[in-house]
Amino acid sequence: MSPRKIGVTEVALRDAHQSLMATRMALEDMVDACADIDKAGFWSVECWGGATYDACIRYLNEDPWVRLRTFRELMPNSKLQMLLRGQNLLGYRHYEDTVVDKFVEKSAENGMDVFRVFDALNDPRNLERAMNAVTKVGKHAQGTICYTISPLHTTEGYVQLAGRLLDMGAQSICLKDMAALLQPQPAYDIVKGIKDTYGDVQINVHCHSTTGVTLVALMKAIEAGADVVDTAISSMSLGPGHNPTESLVEMLKGTDYYTELDPECLLRIRDHFAAVRPKYKQFESATLVDTDIFSSQIPGGMLSNMESQLKQQGAGDKIREVMAEVPKVKAAAGHPPLVTPSSQIVGTQAVFNVLMGEYKVLTGEFADLMLGYYGECMGERDPEVVAAAQAQAKKEPITDRPADHLQPEWDTLVADAAKLEGADGTDEDVLTYAMFPGVAPGFFKTRDEGPKNVGKTEEQLAKEASAASGASNAVTGPITYKVSMGGREHSVVVERA
Amino acid sequence: MSPRKIGVTEVALRDAHQSLMATRMALEDMVDACADIDKAGFWSVECWGGATYDACIRYLNEDPWVRLRTFRELMPNSKLQMLLRGQNLLGYRHYEDTVVDKFVEKSAENGMDVFRVFDALNDPRNLERAMNAVTKVGKHAQGTICYTISPLHTTEGYVQLAGRLLDMGAQSICLKDMAALLQPQPAYDIVKGIKDTYGDVQINVHCHSTTGVTLVALMKAIEAGADVVDTAISSMSLGPGHNPTESLVEMLKGTDYYTELDPECLLRIRDHFAAVRPKYKQFESATLVDTDIFSSQIPGGMLSNMESQLKQQGAGDKIREVMAEVPKVKAAAGHPPLVTPSSQIVGTQAVFNVLMGEYKVLTGEFADLMLGYYGECMGERDPEVVAAAQAQAKKEPITDRPADHLQPEWDTLVADAAKLEGADGTDEDVLTYAMFPGVAPGFFKTRDEGPKNVGKTEEQLAKEASAASGASNAVTGPITYKVSMGGREHSVVVERA
Repeated sequence: MSPRKIGVTEVALRDAHQSLMATRMALEDMVDACADIDKAGFWSVECWGGATYDACIRYLNEDPWVRLRTFRELMPNSKLQMLLRGQNLLGYRHYEDTVVDKFVEKSAENGMDVFRVFDALNDPRNLERAMNAVTKVGKHAQGTICYTISPLHTTEGYVQLAGRLLDMGAQSICLKDMAALLQPQPAYDIVKGIKDTYGDVQINVHCHSTTGVTLVALMKAIEAGADVVDTAISSMSLGPGHNPTESLVEMLKGTDYYTELDPECLLRIRDHFAAVRPKYKQFESATLVDTDIFSSQIPGGMLSNMESQLKQQGAGDKIREVMAEVPKVKAAAGHPPLVTPSSQIVGTQAVFNVLMGEYKVLTGEFADLMLGYYGECMGERDPEVVAAAQAQAKKEPITDRPADHLQPEWDTLVADAAKLEGADGTDEDVLTYAMFPGVAPGFFKTRDEGPKNVGKTEEQLAKEASAASGASNAVTGPITYKVSMGGREHSVVVERA
Repeated sequence: MSPRKIGVTEVALRDAHQSLMATRMALEDMVDACADIDKAGFWSVECWGGATYDACIRYLNEDPWVRLRTFRELMPNSKLQMLLRGQNLLGYRHYEDTVVDKFVEKSAENGMDVFRVFDALNDPRNLERAMNAVTKVGKHAQGTICYTISPLHTTEGYVQLAGRLLDMGAQSICLKDMAALLQPQPAYDIVKGIKDTYGDVQINVHCHSTTGVTLVALMKAIEAGADVVDTAISSMSLGPGHNPTESLVEMLKGTDYYTELDPECLLRIRDHFAAVRPKYKQFESATLVDTDIFSSQIPGGMLSNMESQLKQQGAGDKIREVMAEVPKVKAAAGHPPLVTPSSQIVGTQAVFNVLMGEYKVLTGEFADLMLGYYGECMGERDPEVVAAAQAQAKKEPITDRPADHLQPEWDTLVADAAKLEGADGTDEDVLTYAMFPGVAPGFFKTRDEGPKNVGKTEEQLAKEASAASGASNAVTGPITYKVSMGGREHSVVVERA
């Protein structure tokens, strides 16, 4: 067998900072790395998605379309890649088909090349329109399998799902392991199953590193035939993020597989982000490695969400009960993979069940999930809970494609966006409003003020380091203070005795 | 093929804190985890070695023999394991054979079961006496291969070395990768080579995690037949340490291999050390993952040593030159693996060469290395440098076993130790003196004061956290200041109201 080249998707510009630092990295902290990323030889550069779009307008006063065009300009030789939530696009609801078409068209026009399309429930009907739209504009449509573990999820099931994605025109298949649940053996079995069944279809594998085992999963996936794997440059890797790009390169040395990444470029990309990462330390979690998910089945982000909901209700001590409730709610809903938005929907309902009794109160989203408005899952839904949802939400269950129930909405969106102060009348602005109607108006208003970097400056970091070093915790001075004492003001100079 | 059980050596009590926190963990921070470690089902528990012995008497005012006996008492069902530097025992020079015998005898008597015996140069003659001594007292003698990469080191060479260790009575072979250099393919090839050549000999694999690739190396080693692998509980893992025990367990799920570790015990061990680790944060390095060593061939600890030597000489800017010099010095010395003490010897000579000209000044240790006083390496030594060593050190080169040049020394050691204040006349104290003649006298004097924990208390940690949180940056006091007001100076005591 002659050595086989393995492609690499670098995720530093999207999922890495989303996972490590709550998606807070500003464009200005990325631009200086782009030339090297462009030259390093990646199969693609992931750089855009729902959370980055959201964070841009919510926290950073950055136009996400400007960010995309900047990447396009700075990385002319790279395939830019985004993560698209199927019929949800980058938002949290289903959009009507013409909005889907428009979003894909504008994204392609602004520079996007590879669209990784997924649905939280793995319902292929929720991917179909987006995939077709991508194919229509001549870009790469990647059909995604969200990996999860349940009594119903089998290798055969995943292989069949890959077949449905290929039938609807997927140019490649992504096996997406957002919770770091993918162990080496199932990684091997699924990739091998897809290759054996459908011939030489391109397979990309995306793993998080939270559980510490997924670089091994990438190795086994590669042995089984995977073509491209996702990694993050080492200085933006590990913990709840991804496996280090450089470790992947070294892992393959001497094997029948190789990458063709330029080591000098990798070194410079690493050094760039090694300097940037400490600025965002306040947003980082302390998680180094966590294998709890294999028993709890609860992704880390979902757990912290539930904890904060409980604390707000003064019921922080109920977390163990809620954790025990999650698998039951998940089973009642037909075993959806737990990923945005299903993770939030299931988690919140589990909290409600514990605080108010089982299914006494349903969230609107959970009722929709039970009634089929998010699509179909692998498993049957519990008919009693479906009945409760029907009663509470006063809605009929559906079995057809959820988006078929939507009315054309593009013209309304255009009209509504036009009324917003600071909106510029472009389709891009209409889409921003469509995705995040609550946040977009505020962003349009302040957009002119330009980007706001929420990372700390070097000066702030130096100050904190000295404060923590303990020598401090006191004035070292001399410092001049204005001091009021007995109603009179004095100018006072203070220094350590 | 029926599933094969993989043994696990837990390193939390020795190499994990040695690698992560400069060996500073006090016994009192370990004892509460021992019951669970004892019950978890490990093949062995590594808990003793040169650095822990040294740190006990140098920093912690702890008697290392008391530590060993405590472990023995708290873990009655476990095989306790130590790392032994062959003829160097736990010190930094060769000891005469009767001292070797005595050390092994007393270690066994105090509770040691498995002796992992290694030599920095991989010279089997430096292991032989210690291995025989272990066999004589009926304990497990494990012969060690130190893994390194050089133009001379081949799979065949390592397989041959394993044969020599087996010939001298090794009950098992350890492939020891102290620098995290072991990539998956060589791991597979070496383990397979040993199994194919010598039949079903037990193989243990020890890897650090620094480069991020070695859990994959463990997977491939297991596929090739490895029997036992070393890991650290997750809360004491990663960075310059080791792969997480729980990740190993999960990695093997669904494969033809399994561990039989008790998950409840692992959880409690993890939680114990998760609470302890922050106390020693001041000793931790910031290294998360570092693949530089594959190109530089310089272990991280050695690099920081050289940097601090250069800084002391006001030549901190010369580090790149020194890094380029290291491979040349290593080649001139016949390609020794870079591990204590060869890493220090080669590193310091590289610094000398850059600062004073190539081999203009040799350290005593480097001259000894060139003249054969540390043993033989895989490669030929550079005859010109040997000549320089001969001239400077005024010593003849040797080719026989270095320890054959030593005179009986046990009686002298006993007599010298007896003169020390606080020494109690036991063989254990004589051995402590023999290992660390510079540190032991001070330790004997202060031993009665009892152990000193150098970790931070919870109170200190809370204080620092609040200082760093910025809410502070204010005096909590009471602190005395010199205050000038209206030209007059006052002594003022300030504290938080």
